[in-house]
Amino acid sequence: MSNIDIKSINTIRVLSADGIEKAKSGHPGLPLGSAPIAYELFAHHMKHNPKNPTWANRDRFILSAGHGSMLLYSLFHLFEYGDLSLDDLKQFRQLDSKTPGHPEYGHTVGVEATTGPLGAGMGMAVGMAMAEAHMASVFNEDGFDIVDHYTYVLGGDGCMMEGISSEAFSLAGTLGLSKLIVFYDSNGISIEGSTDIAFTENVVERMKAFGFQTIEVKDGNDIEAIGKAIEEAKADKERPSFIKVNTIIGYGAGKKAGSASSHGEPLGSEALAALKSGFGFNPDESFKVDDDVYANFKSVNEKNAKVEDEWNKLFKEYAAKYPDKAKLWEKYYNDIDESLIDSDEFWSWDEAPAATRNISGSIINRLKDIYPNIIGGSADLSPSNKTVMNNEGYIAKGDYSGRNIHFGVRELAMTAITNGILLHGGLRAYCATFFVFSDYTKPMARLSALMNIPTIFVFTHDSIGVGEDGPTHEPIEQLAMLRSLPNFNTFRPADAKETIAAWYAALVSKTTPTAIVLTRQNLPQLEGSTKEALKGGYIIKEASKAVADMILIASGSEVSLAIDAAKELENEGIATRVVSMPCTDVFENQSKEYKEEVLPKAVRNRVAIEALSGFGWDKYTGLDGRVISMNSFGASAPQDQLFKKFGFTKENVVATAKEVLNQ
Amino acid sequence: MSNIDIKSINTIRVLSADGIEKAKSGHPGLPLGSAPIAYELFAHHMKHNPKNPTWANRDRFILSAGHGSMLLYSLFHLFEYGDLSLDDLKQFRQLDSKTPGHPEYGHTVGVEATTGPLGAGMGMAVGMAMAEAHMASVFNEDGFDIVDHYTYVLGGDGCMMEGISSEAFSLAGTLGLSKLIVFYDSNGISIEGSTDIAFTENVVERMKAFGFQTIEVKDGNDIEAIGKAIEEAKADKERPSFIKVNTIIGYGAGKKAGSASSHGEPLGSEALAALKSGFGFNPDESFKVDDDVYANFKSVNEKNAKVEDEWNKLFKEYAAKYPDKAKLWEKYYNDIDESLIDSDEFWSWDEAPAATRNISGSIINRLKDIYPNIIGGSADLSPSNKTVMNNEGYIAKGDYSGRNIHFGVRELAMTAITNGILLHGGLRAYCATFFVFSDYTKPMARLSALMNIPTIFVFTHDSIGVGEDGPTHEPIEQLAMLRSLPNFNTFRPADAKETIAAWYAALVSKTTPTAIVLTRQNLPQLEGSTKEALKGGYIIKEASKAVADMILIASGSEVSLAIDAAKELENEGIATRVVSMPCTDVFENQSKEYKEEVLPKAVRNRVAIEALSGFGWDKYTGLDGRVISMNSFGASAPQDQLFKKFGFTKENVVATAKEVLNQ
Repeated sequence: MSNIDIKSINTIRVLSADGIEKAKSGHPGLPLGSAPIAYELFAHHMKHNPKNPTWANRDRFILSAGHGSMLLYSLFHLFEYGDLSLDDLKQFRQLDSKTPGHPEYGHTVGVEATTGPLGAGMGMAVGMAMAEAHMASVFNEDGFDIVDHYTYVLGGDGCMMEGISSEAFSLAGTLGLSKLIVFYDSNGISIEGSTDIAFTENVVERMKAFGFQTIEVKDGNDIEAIGKAIEEAKADKERPSFIKVNTIIGYGAGKKAGSASSHGEPLGSEALAALKSGFGFNPDESFKVDDDVYANFKSVNEKNAKVEDEWNKLFKEYAAKYPDKAKLWEKYYNDIDESLIDSDEFWSWDEAPAATRNISGSIINRLKDIYPNIIGGSADLSPSNKTVMNNEGYIAKGDYSGRNIHFGVRELAMTAITNGILLHGGLRAYCATFFVFSDYTKPMARLSALMNIPTIFVFTHDSIGVGEDGPTHEPIEQLAMLRSLPNFNTFRPADAKETIAAWYAALVSKTTPTAIVLTRQNLPQLEGSTKEALKGGYIIKEASKAVADMILIASGSEVSLAIDAAKELENEGIATRVVSMPCTDVFENQSKEYKEEVLPKAVRNRVAIEALSGFGWDKYTGLDGRVISMNSFGASAPQDQLFKKFGFTKENVVATAKEVLNQ
Repeated sequence: MSNIDIKSINTIRVLSADGIEKAKSGHPGLPLGSAPIAYELFAHHMKHNPKNPTWANRDRFILSAGHGSMLLYSLFHLFEYGDLSLDDLKQFRQLDSKTPGHPEYGHTVGVEATTGPLGAGMGMAVGMAMAEAHMASVFNEDGFDIVDHYTYVLGGDGCMMEGISSEAFSLAGTLGLSKLIVFYDSNGISIEGSTDIAFTENVVERMKAFGFQTIEVKDGNDIEAIGKAIEEAKADKERPSFIKVNTIIGYGAGKKAGSASSHGEPLGSEALAALKSGFGFNPDESFKVDDDVYANFKSVNEKNAKVEDEWNKLFKEYAAKYPDKAKLWEKYYNDIDESLIDSDEFWSWDEAPAATRNISGSIINRLKDIYPNIIGGSADLSPSNKTVMNNEGYIAKGDYSGRNIHFGVRELAMTAITNGILLHGGLRAYCATFFVFSDYTKPMARLSALMNIPTIFVFTHDSIGVGEDGPTHEPIEQLAMLRSLPNFNTFRPADAKETIAAWYAALVSKTTPTAIVLTRQNLPQLEGSTKEALKGGYIIKEASKAVADMILIASGSEVSLAIDAAKELENEGIATRVVSMPCTDVFENQSKEYKEEVLPKAVRNRVAIEALSGFGWDKYTGLDGRVISMNSFGASAPQDQLFKKFGFTKENVVATAKEVLNQ
């Protein structure tokens, strides 16, 4: 270990502690303990070029323990990622700074994934490694390993306690994702104290059981041992690797070192001074970086820039020798195809009643040829979710060329993995489960939205229409849950045309994830359904008068019911408009004028119908309208009986509409 | 293995298959494969008395793989649990039957926990075992093992893939819950095919790593081996036990045996006939139970009834010798204390501004003496959540008498475990984490609600008031998520009085879980806050005119802002009422008259203010009002700056109110 290595590591430590001290907020424990791991990796092993941080073949690094964000920011400053300045470090955790409390993807150059919810990074890393393996199988040719990089992730005890990491690692082991290298920053401390209080399991043995090569580094300051471990990890071509590094939380911070008190608050002047003195820094100086340290990082960058140059040369040769592949590469990386909007073929469908999950299945099989870079799968429910791409293989150990994914019964990790696939770049991806189990996906769906990535969720079995499986399997509040999530579009289509619209919207979305919520039961094809569904809400049946007496609003399986009720009301002389509302999120983004056109403020007699929780519908029905919805959990019975029991009948809609008119 | 054992097992199999066939819906694979495990356990090992299914000291059994519900119903019929008749079995999955698609707690006598979402039962079983250990430490005396029972749980591959089981088992191993016995029905098949496609980990080694004794039964039909394994499991006094039983899914069902096709649909006439013939049943008969089989189960019941008699005798002696303990036992089992409503001391609080999380912490420490049977803890955030009961120990390996629980960073399992503690009986329990991580608790919070058990959730850091930690840690849509959940009360108190009300409501609730959502930042004590908060919404500041010009509605930290704005509006001659709405769920349950009194329909000028998603608030503001809320994720900055940035200022509320008045 050279002096400049030691000095560089300690500079990372001191910068991190300074940033946190100035912010009066943050988590010094991890940066102090893990700086040698991050330094050794970034300086001596990772293939990365800060001047081109989106280089397709770079090694990826995710800080799963996102609270240690200052570690990243210090590194990024020293490596000149996005020209992150010392002033930026001084703005740690301040309004509109480049250095927020937890690393945010798309906000700070160099951040590969938003982290903070523990374990999330572990799942996303598995997704990145899966994407790399698949892309390599699609693009690489003899002598042209165009796609050939590692995915590194660093997490702590919290990441290992969270169930998502078990889910993700079990799948990574099954698939033998050997280019996934996981660092476990094992410091024996969690917020409530020693990890002995709640976490005495043998983590290494658990990882071995998942199918990982496991390596232990006894002293977290020994960067030679860390380097050797990384080399061993790379050498294993069959298994992902798990490197347990024994570290000391808050290393160097005087009395606070090794204690929970260094985890989540500034060190305070005393421990900070001890830190600086101990490492040979002047305690009276802050945010100080010596020139030789800058020079050290610059020399690493120069070396790495050459590595990218070589890859660029290789890619040029590849493009000359395999022009079709090079074209395909272009397609993979620029995959938004809005021309489908004008394709009559894409928007056509036959008139037979069908479950929207089946329609979705057919659409997936149309789209797979249009978008060769779509991959996806289900949490062990593909026969029910109808998500299999026919005549395409499955991603499997040793052969990653398949486009279908068996995620196993692991909804949360599935979502993180799908996010990771998108973050990797080059691919589009969907994941699927029963709609009620969107509950499990929620923490990671939130990250999709927060990261502005267009993850696609296929959620089938969308209401009490589930029937016999009963209340544990019948979604009620899940639509409200997803509709209330910012930057997330939830489509609940009423028929084939609307299902096509949902898939189209999902695929042209650049920065917003989309959930497509589908029925188990057959639905009729509706006369009035059109591409207008892309506006989120539209008039699917006009009233017989210019100003309607009544507006019925519904989504999904209840739209046809609304139309039937409207016809009955019209028969009784009540001019009734029906609004189909497949996606409230998108409808809200329409112009004020359009919204007024669809739901004129003057028409106050309104009834909304949805066979799930009515929570949120009052936005459209107001104080004078009514919502026919589920106010309780569902029940176990054939679905037609449930719709009747809970009032989703033409008779009840008509009667409710009349009550509203007569109130 | 006697003939009657074999015949009894096969009767369970055939009854289960018959029920599913008649329903034209269900999951025969597990009952056919696991019937010997369940039979051996219920007939030869478990201490249970169907005539008194709530006997406090019974052994518990949870079918974590809830889709195998017919296994339970067949068992319950044969053991005469709740007089479940053959007719009830014929009504499997039918409207209002006693035999719904998945086992429902409180619905079918004998069901200890609602299951269906895979892995949930594993978590609840850990909670039950923890409750048993704690209750034993509180009540048992030399020679009087009043609390002394096992908790058994049976799950399949799906349960083992779900992250919740890793979380729960890691904690069970840490705590050495030796009376927890887990059966793993290992049939190598999941819905998408062989488990090899997504699940090649070594499950037994994983469980060993968690600290379990592991035992393997090679042949799932060998009940002697199963019995021996159970005895070995009981003999280990240090570790929980994991019994892997190799079974064949759909055992006996002709060609369907061993294949995914037997998992989730009726066998069909051919395979059903093969099943019956193979087991010596008449294929032309359905729902047929021979008298000798009934007699066999009856003899087991007789034996077991004596076991309970003995316990009753023991308890009588115990009560005589330890009358205080017997009294305490009464208190534990009848713990609702509504007299607190009249305690001025309980409702009093000093006037200093305080964070509601700190107030909650103090209340917990008042309540711990009033309710000696409360236990609880946090997912490694107790210093932040303020959930520690002072001067009480922690539940730990070998000493379970503590009342605080270190759950570790495992929010989902924490919730299931807390549910399990309640299901066990005798205890009240709370769990805690940051509000944003309520996302992780959601699937199990839903089960709390569905099971009608009063689980208590302490969620702190309740809005953008989180500040520097930024958007990953700032809840936005979580209130909407929980408010839309049926049978779930979400309180977001505005000050000390309302926090007391929230805790009071949580503790007197018998069938509804409660979330208490609390601030990180200080809030002022409000002049108008009262016990009326128990109504969910109430007038906290009356307008200067009988009919208000404007109503401001808010919850939590925004109530004081609303009051300030109202004063300003009054200064400008606008008569403004302020409604504090700590719990919309409870407010909705008030009489129509009360709701009209608080929010008169005639007053349409309304503004709601909440520093989270506005989703759902239109119910109270209508088409003419406005909602000041978060329409995006938050940001990382000091909290006062965030409130300003996002418009939660007196100026903005006043301006918005005027816009509404002038529209």
